[in-house]
Amino acid sequence: LKPAIITLLTDFGARDYFVGAMKGVILSLNPDATIVDLTHEIPPQDIQAAAFNLLACFKDFPAGTIHVAVVDPGVGSDRRAIVVECSDQFFIGPDNGLFSWIVEREGAFKARELTNNRFFRNPVSATFHGRDVFAPVAGALSTGISVTELGDTLPDINRLPSIEPKRVNDGTIQGRVIHIDHFGNCVTNLSAEYFARATMLFINQHKLTSFFKFFAEARRDDDPFCFVGSAGLLEIATRDGRAASILSVECGQSVTLKLSQTQ
Amino acid sequence: LKPAIITLLTDFGARDYFVGAMKGVILSLNPDATIVDLTHEIPPQDIQAAAFNLLACFKDFPAGTIHVAVVDPGVGSDRRAIVVECSDQFFIGPDNGLFSWIVEREGAFKARELTNNRFFRNPVSATFHGRDVFAPVAGALSTGISVTELGDTLPDINRLPSIEPKRVNDGTIQGRVIHIDHFGNCVTNLSAEYFARATMLFINQHKLTSFFKFFAEARRDDDPFCFVGSAGLLEIATRDGRAASILSVECGQSVTLKLSQTQ
Amino acid sequence: LKPAIITLLTDFGARDYFVGAMKGVILSLNPDATIVDLTHEIPPQDIQAAAFNLLACFKDFPAGTIHVAVVDPGVGSDRRAIVVECSDQFFIGPDNGLFSWIVEREGAFKARELTNNRFFRNPVSATFHGRDVFAPVAGALSTGISVTELGDTLPDINRLPSIEPKRVNDGTIQGRVIHIDHFGNCVTNLSAEYFARATMLFINQHKLTSFFKFFAEARRDDDPFCFVGSAGLLEIATRDGRAASILSVECGQSVTLKLSQTQ
Repeated sequence: LKPAIITLLTDFGARDYFVGAMKGVILSLNPDATIVDLTHEIPPQDIQAAAFNLLACFKDFPAGTIHVAVVDPGVGSDRRAIVVECSDQFFIGPDNGLFSWIVEREGAFKARELTNNRFFRNPVSATFHGRDVFAPVAGALSTGISVTELGDTLPDINRLPSIEPKRVNDGTIQGRVIHIDHFGNCVTNLSAEYFARATMLFINQHKLTSFFKFFAEARRDDDPFCFVGSAGLLEIATRDGRAASILSVECGQSVTLKLSQTQ
Repeated sequence: LKPAIITLLTDFGARDYFVGAMKGVILSLNPDATIVDLTHEIPPQDIQAAAFNLLACFKDFPAGTIHVAVVDPGVGSDRRAIVVECSDQFFIGPDNGLFSWIVEREGAFKARELTNNRFFRNPVSATFHGRDVFAPVAGALSTGISVTELGDTLPDINRLPSIEPKRVNDGTIQGRVIHIDHFGNCVTNLSAEYFARATMLFINQHKLTSFFKFFAEARRDDDPFCFVGSAGLLEIATRDGRAASILSVECGQSVTLKLSQTQ
Repeated sequence: LKPAIITLLTDFGARDYFVGAMKGVILSLNPDATIVDLTHEIPPQDIQAAAFNLLACFKDFPAGTIHVAVVDPGVGSDRRAIVVECSDQFFIGPDNGLFSWIVEREGAFKARELTNNRFFRNPVSATFHGRDVFAPVAGALSTGISVTELGDTLPDINRLPSIEPKRVNDGTIQGRVIHIDHFGNCVTNLSAEYFARATMLFINQHKLTSFFKFFAEARRDDDPFCFVGSAGLLEIATRDGRAASILSVECGQSVTLKLSQTQ
């Protein structure tokens, strides 16, 4: 029997008992669970940042992993709580788009609404479903409870705006910045396939023409360049500074990529 | 045999080797221990913040859990090191009030001074008892060493000012802010029982009259409101901003709650 | 069979999927691995800070522990990837000096270049060898793969400037600040052996003459003093403030220690 792996991704930060409480609930149900923190530093209520970070690493986990994501501005309202089966893994959280990019990329999925309160903490608070709904459901699932017991299937889940960029014409792709990382790199939704043909990237009045394979290629200064990041997406970076600050880029900002016509 | 669960709560922050060293010491004694970080971002030397965070989540952990808390401005002086048994769990740390709110709430407890240096790391430094005293004692306890071997019983532990608010009269309760969380919410020591009768809360020259069940009830602006937080205590929040900043609230500040007389 | 312990130390920060991806890769190879975060808050590309933090705690871990350190400004260039055996433990990371102070202190070691790409993630990105090279090699090693399979031995590893201070004369030692910790304490490379004879420490135009055994000895104010920190090195601190700010100290700054001649 493989130990059950449960990952946690939230916007709870590191200074409070919130994440500890979720772990206590899980370990009370399954003391053998392996709990992995993905990150708890998602900017408050930033569902797209959470969706991107989960998308970027879920495939590195083994089949059967249970991912719990709690960025939940609608907690206590009538937003649904869901479990999604996709790519041989489980995703548990509020139905606000957190898992929609995974589902969009993978295609096949099955979603259920978490309605069986037999698996909830008792009582359920109005403000902390991470502890009271999502953690105990993940704990139950990790002990071998069938996902079919958690609630009825849903025809679809709520979706974020598509992660795919727009093809304006043969030579122009319109995308956007979907995440700014710890190093100030700006992650776009432009996938690696465009890299070979890329000639120019426009962002925020700036025109970038350097497309590098790795950081050491750049001269040691603040000139921004593009490269394919570890999530398989085009990123904007500088060798030593924070590209997001230097270019005044914010999350959501649009980027335009020009491609050579020759290929 | 259930795996031993050991939680860690400190003011060590995340950038140094301190927490890693404690984990290494524990795993050297008990490689099967499950170590859980509660938080390491307690403001330096803030014993009340540590006491609150531990109080707010210890019950989510299973019986037998060992909680190690190290916020220890008196390290190296003659302050005592203690282990407290309470509510079927163990609490290890300096005797400076860290566990006093748990003991105050739970009533029954047994405390011992950690005097048996056979269980300490050798040598014991003057500055890092987290690594040299508390972690190895927790590790030993997790392997089945009896708590009676750790030292003699104490009649009482050092106490913080009571967590209970003062009843000024039938309609007025005097409390204080005991924690400001990651979202800027101000957690008071006013318990949920007052919520139904609450009519007005005074804090820092401000008068609050909105008492909501969950965040989505609030309009999307900066108006502060009260709600019952996940620790079962009244909190002050705003929907989108940081209530602590908007109201200039600091930890320890007093609050006055007015109750309706009708109930 | 003891569970395999793998520690992680990086400059990746806490807000992205980077560390989670490394853990997923490890757990995919060895679901029984115990993964310990040392810190992910090393200042970006600060190899010396990483080297110090690893040096300060590796001995607290049991024999056989695998330490993965990824502070890797040269990722994607031709810098080598290595595994070092030293003090009955394993160290995996880029060959840029991260492990050189451990090797300098311990003396005996064996290093290998990680050339056997059978143990790498496929494909290997140009920017994230933490996930694609170091994590999977650590995972493989933890499952019992022999270190000899990972690559050929190297005569030496790249070295940082020595961690040893310079003896100017019988009464004068020239050292430097090698780390500033969470509390603003300035850790020097002056070892505890000098403490008994220390009379004066010069740093940044300031002259310190207080040498204390523990913090509670200091008066509750901002006067800086010296003490032997938990890493066995002289540190500069104040009781309540941040010594690094009060004295305007930065990492790398030189310190001069005067010793009494009498001993």
